Amino acid sequence: MPDSPIRKLAPLAEQARQKGIEVFHLNIGQPDLPTPPEALEAIKNIDRKILEYTPSEGILSFRQKLATYYHRFDIDVETEDIIITSGGSEAVTFAFMSCLDPGDEIIVPEPAYANYEAFAIVAGAKIKAIAADIEEGFSLPPIEEFEKLISPKTKGIMICNPNNPTGYLYTQQEMNAIRDLVKKYDLYLFSDEVYREFCYTGAPYISAFHLKGIEQNVVLVDSVSKRYSECGLRIGALITKNKEVKRNVIKFCQARLSPPLIGQIAAEASLDADPEYMLNNYNEYVNRRKFLIDGLNRIEGVYSPIPMGAFYTVARLPVDNSDKFCEWLLSDFHYESQTIFLAPASGFYTGSDRGMNEVRIAYVLKKEDLAKSLKILEEALKVYPGSKVRQKMASEETK
Amino acid sequence: MPDSPIRKLAPLAEQARQKGIEVFHLNIGQPDLPTPPEALEAIKNIDRKILEYTPSEGILSFRQKLATYYHRFDIDVETEDIIITSGGSEAVTFAFMSCLDPGDEIIVPEPAYANYEAFAIVAGAKIKAIAADIEEGFSLPPIEEFEKLISPKTKGIMICNPNNPTGYLYTQQEMNAIRDLVKKYDLYLFSDEVYREFCYTGAPYISAFHLKGIEQNVVLVDSVSKRYSECGLRIGALITKNKEVKRNVIKFCQARLSPPLIGQIAAEASLDADPEYMLNNYNEYVNRRKFLIDGLNRIEGVYSPIPMGAFYTVARLPVDNSDKFCEWLLSDFHYESQTIFLAPASGFYTGSDRGMNEVRIAYVLKKEDLAKSLKILEEALKVYPGSKVRQKMASEETK
Repeated sequence: MPDSPIRKLAPLAEQARQKGIEVFHLNIGQPDLPTPPEALEAIKNIDRKILEYTPSEGILSFRQKLATYYHRFDIDVETEDIIITSGGSEAVTFAFMSCLDPGDEIIVPEPAYANYEAFAIVAGAKIKAIAADIEEGFSLPPIEEFEKLISPKTKGIMICNPNNPTGYLYTQQEMNAIRDLVKKYDLYLFSDEVYREFCYTGAPYISAFHLKGIEQNVVLVDSVSKRYSECGLRIGALITKNKEVKRNVIKFCQARLSPPLIGQIAAEASLDADPEYMLNNYNEYVNRRKFLIDGLNRIEGVYSPIPMGAFYTVARLPVDNSDKFCEWLLSDFHYESQTIFLAPASGFYTGSDRGMNEVRIAYVLKKEDLAKSLKILEEALKVYPGSKVRQKMASEETK
Repeated sequence: MPDSPIRKLAPLAEQARQKGIEVFHLNIGQPDLPTPPEALEAIKNIDRKILEYTPSEGILSFRQKLATYYHRFDIDVETEDIIITSGGSEAVTFAFMSCLDPGDEIIVPEPAYANYEAFAIVAGAKIKAIAADIEEGFSLPPIEEFEKLISPKTKGIMICNPNNPTGYLYTQQEMNAIRDLVKKYDLYLFSDEVYREFCYTGAPYISAFHLKGIEQNVVLVDSVSKRYSECGLRIGALITKNKEVKRNVIKFCQARLSPPLIGQIAAEASLDADPEYMLNNYNEYVNRRKFLIDGLNRIEGVYSPIPMGAFYTVARLPVDNSDKFCEWLLSDFHYESQTIFLAPASGFYTGSDRGMNEVRIAYVLKKEDLAKSLKILEEALKVYPGSKVRQKMASEETK
């Protein structure tokens, strides 16, 4: 099981704090926005004497309500297609374990969520990655690149849409290309759509379940963690219309007995969240996104494409090695007793040479902290030994 | 992934209910006793605006308090040895995945908790079983039988103590024999001790961590599910002093991000449960155990050893095939519009021919329902076509 660069940096952040340095966490996907009051209220109102197992596939009323929720997005699934899991993590794990045999391969455009690889390892499967290009805004790599990787071992494609870490939202044309490939080779399409509520450009969110003719191939992964700021509940879902996959997934669900009871109660209540609550959170992300991306692109040598969804961007920095830069930010730098924790992009690529000057930045901090973070980044790039900005400044000085 | 016989029977129980038949559930390990009020209160008093991820290894204060809890049982572990998991299920899964490679083997005395096999399959490992004998009260099979199975692929032994499904409690002598074997072959000892609070005979509970000289080999599995009637919280723990195992387990923990937040809060509060609450539950099980075992052994042809712990017994019935008998009880029989759901023991054995006239009975029902259940069993054995009691009665009639 590989170690992620973020995890290696965590002790440095702790050490910085102990030295009295305030650390702005732009490295994690833990939203700072409030959980819906409906969820907190539901937890307070639990009136049970025994906190029992729930059915292995989840509480029926919750699954029914989720079906209605998906219908609002024109996702045509029924209660029986929805299996509740302990977070999206378990949904991905069970999807891989149920659909893949040891030695099987799945194709993943990258940068990609680092733990997909961990879950593939658990299933004994292998990820074959195709790098998306920051210059293309991290759009889907040419479908021919996917086709080149297809072998008899290839069993599926995994996408995340809107994308973590890039914030990219796949277009209809791109989704159609994926659909045709999935159909041609009869592959599974694992689609992680946990950020569907966060699409900012007016471009449509296209679910894997919107694609005609591959309904039996789609395994959708969902979670309430990001949508409702409920990461701690550990409630996700695996959605499939494929009876055989469903049967396999249920066996894994039964072995682990039950998803968390209280999390399900709170998540079910969250489906009744006030539309104004959802809109406020949405607007907050819209504002932060504009503020952050504008700010990043104003810093000399920094480039960020404009993310269309989720609450991340992958930016290119004028540094030699973003692993080292992120480490240096925590261990050797502070500006007015503050510093920033960024996620080196190397953790989102399987190839060791990719993304070496890229970082993921999550806009899960309020605007004033984002402003400070941007200032810290700008100042850091002026003095970091491996910074091209510093080198340029130095060479100008000697002229 | 194998299908368990209990799960195959569940739809029949549902159909019986729909026909207006009351079904007594002696088939499951879901206690009917109340959750500690301290836990329910802690949930009501949660005063957070955001339900965030917890650390991957669990909330620090909870782990600290758990260490103190274990010290009460002379289990010498520290906070850093304790990793919080999503139920005991995840603890077993992560233990196997962290210690075993695909193709590795573990030896398990059986009858054994059915899902161990499922978790071994997830890790790509194989269970080698040794049958314990009902005539010996399900005591540990001779250690020479274990030794015969040891090959270079053997990496560990898994025990459950007190035992699910048999209620057996391993003696000091048996535990010493296990210790010596573990030491001789440098094996892991996976020890599931979730029923430690439920030991009824005055015989000591011997934890794997009580065994001297194998501290680095022990991986202890725990859970609050049974202890505090909190199955729905999904909170367990994996405890190891082995740094390498710990490092591996933490990686799996990080990949799934966090155990459930609210479950941890409730479980931590449960550690302060009133001793009277614990004693009441304990006494209730003591009474039920005596009542059930006496009642079983009074029924013609039925035999149950006296379980020393947990809240199960495995009994022998005078039937041809307990899978068929348990099915028949749900589909073809009722006595005064009531019937019983028993767990066929075949699900607790890996060999297809073992336990064919045994069932597991959980005493998770109040005494009056246990009384009714015993009566139903007695009447059923008089009329079940494959019952030796019925056959005997018929042959006596024709004399």
